[in-house]
This record gives sequence, structure tokens and C-alpha cells, in this order.
Amino acid sequence: MKKRIAILGSTGSIGTQTLDVIANHPERFEVVALAAGRNIDLILEQIRTFCPRVVSVADASAASELKSRIGDEVQIEHGERGLIQVAAHSGADMLVTAIVGSRGLAPTLAAIEAGVAIGLANKETLISAGHLIMEAAKRRAVPIIPIDSEHSAIFQCLNGENPAQVKRIILTASGGAFRDKQRSELARVTVEEALRHPNWSMGAKITIDSATMVNKGLEVIEAHWLFGLDYDRIEVVIHPESIIHSMVEYADTSIIAQLGNPDMRVPIQYALTYPERIAGPYRPLDLVRAGALHFRPMDTDRYPSVSMAYDAGRCGGTMPTVFSAANEVAVERFLQRDIEFLQIEDVIASVMEQHQVTPHPGLEEILAADHWARDMARRMFRP
Amino acid sequence: MKKRIAILGSTGSIGTQTLDVIANHPERFEVVALAAGRNIDLILEQIRTFCPRVVSVADASAASELKSRIGDEVQIEHGERGLIQVAAHSGADMLVTAIVGSRGLAPTLAAIEAGVAIGLANKETLISAGHLIMEAAKRRAVPIIPIDSEHSAIFQCLNGENPAQVKRIILTASGGAFRDKQRSELARVTVEEALRHPNWSMGAKITIDSATMVNKGLEVIEAHWLFGLDYDRIEVVIHPESIIHSMVEYADTSIIAQLGNPDMRVPIQYALTYPERIAGPYRPLDLVRAGALHFRPMDTDRYPSVSMAYDAGRCGGTMPTVFSAANEVAVERFLQRDIEFLQIEDVIASVMEQHQVTPHPGLEEILAADHWARDMARRMFRP
Repeated sequence: MKKRIAILGSTGSIGTQTLDVIANHPERFEVVALAAGRNIDLILEQIRTFCPRVVSVADASAASELKSRIGDEVQIEHGERGLIQVAAHSGADMLVTAIVGSRGLAPTLAAIEAGVAIGLANKETLISAGHLIMEAAKRRAVPIIPIDSEHSAIFQCLNGENPAQVKRIILTASGGAFRDKQRSELARVTVEEALRHPNWSMGAKITIDSATMVNKGLEVIEAHWLFGLDYDRIEVVIHPESIIHSMVEYADTSIIAQLGNPDMRVPIQYALTYPERIAGPYRPLDLVRAGALHFRPMDTDRYPSVSMAYDAGRCGGTMPTVFSAANEVAVERFLQRDIEFLQIEDVIASVMEQHQVTPHPGLEEILAADHWARDMARRMFRP
Repeated sequence: MKKRIAILGSTGSIGTQTLDVIANHPERFEVVALAAGRNIDLILEQIRTFCPRVVSVADASAASELKSRIGDEVQIEHGERGLIQVAAHSGADMLVTAIVGSRGLAPTLAAIEAGVAIGLANKETLISAGHLIMEAAKRRAVPIIPIDSEHSAIFQCLNGENPAQVKRIILTASGGAFRDKQRSELARVTVEEALRHPNWSMGAKITIDSATMVNKGLEVIEAHWLFGLDYDRIEVVIHPESIIHSMVEYADTSIIAQLGNPDMRVPIQYALTYPERIAGPYRPLDLVRAGALHFRPMDTDRYPSVSMAYDAGRCGGTMPTVFSAANEVAVERFLQRDIEFLQIEDVIASVMEQHQVTPHPGLEEILAADHWARDMARRMFRP
């Protein structure tokens, strides 16, 4: 029987690549539901190619535009309710959460409660609600398979091993678009420069997060929840080639690493086929051609957002939500040329500083903290 | 209950390091039997430290010397019969085959038939009798855990994976003592130069095998049997740092690698504790300090012995035995300054050329081919 897949964020970078993987293996996968925003042209094309039963779009006006163009062929939903419909009530075996930001939270929890396996590409879900998500996944025995290349690598390196014998995990970081610049050179960098990632082709938000290394900070917090490890046992090393996607060091000092060319379709496919591996149209890694792999220390003076992430993670409660939400708004504002590149960090730091942490928050408290942090971040550095 | 360990070759490089690992974990391991050659002083010290029940030495004269110095404290055996006693009839749970050369063959087979798990460090066993060993191990459900760092790495990279989804394995090779020399510079190299391995501290024979790359050729044949892979799916890449110990590429292009500092005690301990991993006094790998890992293509013109090994492996039958036995004698002769360094390859090539292959050989035919090849190799290039 084919695996039934639902995707939150089908028109984004991870969403389209997930559909690309599915298109390469029509004998294995069936798309049952898609959720997207306002890119009606693309969602129409996806409906025609993959024939989902349910489609959700951003809001009522996007829904009526879609309805007017496609008729009653598919069930059309919208908004938060639509996301939950796609995630939890579309008959999917697996939900790929490729949506960006805190909107992924409620539908992911709903999917877990409905027993749907999660292919996790939405970082904010674990950042904000790791304690709720992992508890629910454990209680419902729902697998959470990471799609992020770093976490997928660690997940693969843990195959067949005893998690109790893990000494530390080592997340590799490309260093982002500005890795060869001094901190003093970052004051006036442009949006266009920040969007030029050296190795990966990704969405705009994640590319900026990679340049600030907020990305890596979020991955540290995510790894804490996914793999149940103290922050002391999660390290970051700069690896400019992005060929070793991450590593696990065990009690006996053996390190297991996962390597490959930078191609998000590989970890996406792995999440869809796990525990199997299947062939795909991916370029094999040629280490001789690569020639050399380099490693540099993580410099927290150069990348203060990584320290902020560790602080937020160790603080816990609503603080990681605030870190992530403040960053989300700050990145939007940078992309809109409303603040400078280095002000992204300033926004995050100031919002965190003003936050009164709620420990062990429920979903509503998380969303309240998220709302508060966004509001604060929007008002920061206004003339 | 403690794991009962027997060791063939306890006074050699792997043997002493195995005892070092055991000494670090007296709560886990007990030494029940040791076999060594003529180093009576060291075997006496090992008897006093580890209190084995059975000890075997090279021959009757070594046995009576040992008996005169230690009395009736332990059961003393010698020769081929002694090796089999230690391997198969000492009550061991695991046999570490750290003996060098074809003498390891019969006792290893006897141990498998007796249901004793094998920690395999004797390359020649699989080279000569891979078909017999793997058949017996399968029939008796006896685990064969490789100790060689490359095969241990591959074994670790296969943890939790489906062997059917392996695309190829990539053995890394340091390139040996002469990796930065042209082939034309090798004509007059000395024994002392050949014994200076850049990364690993090993026995003399294996260090020379590393300089000629016969070592890597033997590992290719060994990997063929251990992991059940065609020769087309076994590759060699030069990796001067010896930090990535080997890799497995899967169907989806993902590569899983095992990394660590060069310390044979780590794969030895892994074989003893598998499937567990435990802490030990080993220096953790610091990739930032290493700085860079390099990769170069395997050049079969520079290292013709690797091609000879593939040829011997593909030819099968008694040919790998002849390759290995001719090499063993050629290395002895080089160490005795009886032939030049490059003549090691010439000896192997000539003996292989003159060999009439017996397909699917039994133990006697293997030993006959081994004897024939040694004899030929001894007579080659005599004045």
C-alpha cells in the first residue's frame, strides 16, 4: 500500500522538494492533503499533479479564489482550521511540517494526537513546544523523523545505537553567507548579500537565519528535544563545506558522521522512507573531488545568537518561543529593509531581556508568549 | 557475569592492546586463555597479571621453558594443537584472533565450530578461507566482529541499516610510510624507513603491508567476505590523516562514516563490548584541532599491489591465499634485508602468475596452496 502523505507548506522550499521526492516514487507515495498560503497558481499546479483530497490555503479570500478556479474537485479549507484538517483529519500516514514559524505548532500536535507520523521540518514546533510534542509523541508512539539535514544526520548516526551511550552530538554549521567576514564588516550588509548562501538552496528566512547563525541556535534547542540531550552535550563546529551534515560521539570516543552533497531531497526522502533507504536522482558524494573537509571552532563572539539560543534553551519555559518569535519578526523586518542585519540580534536580545518566563507552558501560554514577543519585536527600533 | 576472553597472539601488538583494554575493565572481562610464540618473559608477565587457565606457546621447547619458570599454575600447551585448545576448548565466550598469518586459520574455524564469538584481527583467515569461515559462522550463528579499524568502522556504519541498501563501501587508506614518494623513489628505501608509519603504531608486518598497500588489498578481500559485497562495490580512497576509518554509501547517496583518533584499542574494545559502547582512556577526536581532512584518489599505478589484490579476490579459490602467503614471505625477506622493497610486489606477482588455482578449496587445499606459495616466494630472486 502506498504511504499517504500530507504536507503543511507545500509551496515553500521544503514543500516543493517533498513533492519532487514523491513525484520520483509514485509507486510508494500518495499525496492526500496539502496546505499552502496564497500562491494559488502553484497550488493549482500541485493539485493537478498530485490529486490531493484536501487543500488548505491562507484565508477565506484565497480559498474562494482557488474554488473559483478549480470548482468542487477537492475539499478546500483555510486558516488554522484548514491546517488542522490537513494535518490530522486527511487520512495521512505521515505529515511533513514544511510550514515556517509558530503556525506549525497546533496542527503538528493535532497530527500526533491523531497518530500521524511526523516528518519534521518546522523548527519552531520543537523550539516552542518541545516538551508538549515529545510527550505527546511518546504517549501516542508516533515517530518524529527530522528533515533538517543536521538532525536527519544525527538521527541516521543513532541508527542501531544505544542513546544512553551518546557522549555528545556535534552539529556542523556552514557559517552562512558571511562566514569569511569579520563582525565589524557586518554592519552594512544588504539583504541580497545575506541571501547568498554558500552551499544550500533554501527559503529566504532560513538563509538569513543561517547568516546570523540563529538557525544553528534553533537547531541546538531542537536537538535537545529530539534526542533528549543536555545542552552541555550539544556542540557546534564550523564546517564550511557542509559535507559532514552532523556527527554523534559515543562513550568510546568513536564518532559516527553522515555525509553527502547538500541536497535537501535526501533527508526529505529519508524521512519518507525511514527505516528504508531507496535510490533517487541525487548526485553521489565524491570525496576525492571535494579534496578536503575543514573545521573551525564556533566563535560565540562572532555569532552571539548561538549563545543566546543556548541561554534560551537552558532557561526553558517560554524563553525559546520568545527567541524564535523575536527572530522571525526581526528577519521579516530585515528582509523588508526596515532594520539592519546586526539589528536582528539586537531585537532578539532586547525582547529576551524584557521577557518574564513562564515555566512549563501549555499551548495557550506559548502562543501568548509568541504573540507578545512578535509585538515587542515589531515595535523595537522604530523611529 | 564476566565475558571470558581467549587471545591468539597475546604478546603481539593487537594482543597486548587487547589485554590493555581488558585491564581497564576488570569488572567486565576475564582472560581464560592466551596463545603466544616465544616471548616467554612477556607471557609470564601476562599470566601473572591475567591468570588464564590455559596458555599455549610456539613449540615444545618454549613450553618446557615456560613450565620450568611457572610450574603447574596453568595448563601449558604448544603448537597447532595448543592454538586449537586456546581457541576452542578453553571455555571462552570470545576469541580474539590477533595472531599474524595463516596459522590463525584452523584455530579460528575450530572456535566457530565450538560456538565461540570471534574478534577478528587475523586478516589471513578471511583472505584464505572466507568461504569456509562465513559459512561456518552463519551455520553456527557465531558473530564475527572485525577488529581492524577499517572493518570495525564499516561494521559500525552498518549498525541498524539494511545491508541490501548498501551501494558501496569506501575503505580509507593512509597511503603508508611512502605516500609522499613517487614510485621511482621507492627502489632503495630501507627497512627503517618502511617501518615509520605516519599515523598508526602497529606490528612490523602490518606496517610494511601499509607501505606497499598490500594491507589495503587484503582489507578489500576481507571486506568482500565480511560484508558479502561484490568487488565492484568496494572502493579505496587515500585519506592521509586516518581520521575517517572507513565509510558506507547507501542507496540514497547518504554516506555514514566512523571517525576517531588512530588508537587500535578503540576497535578492539568495540569488538569486546559490541553491541554496547563503553568509556575508556582514549583521547577524544578534536576535529577543530585536526583542522582538515584530505582525500586523494587511489592510484593503482603507484600501488600495483591493490590491483593484484582485486585480481586475486575476483579470481577466488586458492588465489587470495597465494597472494597473502607470498606477501608474508616477501615481507619477512624484506625485513631480513634479503630483498628490496619493490621486490615484495615482484615476488607476489610472480608467485600469483605461476599458481594453478583450485576453486572452492577445502582447508587442506588452502594449506597446500599456502605452503606452495611460501616455498615459491622463498626461492624467488635467489642468487
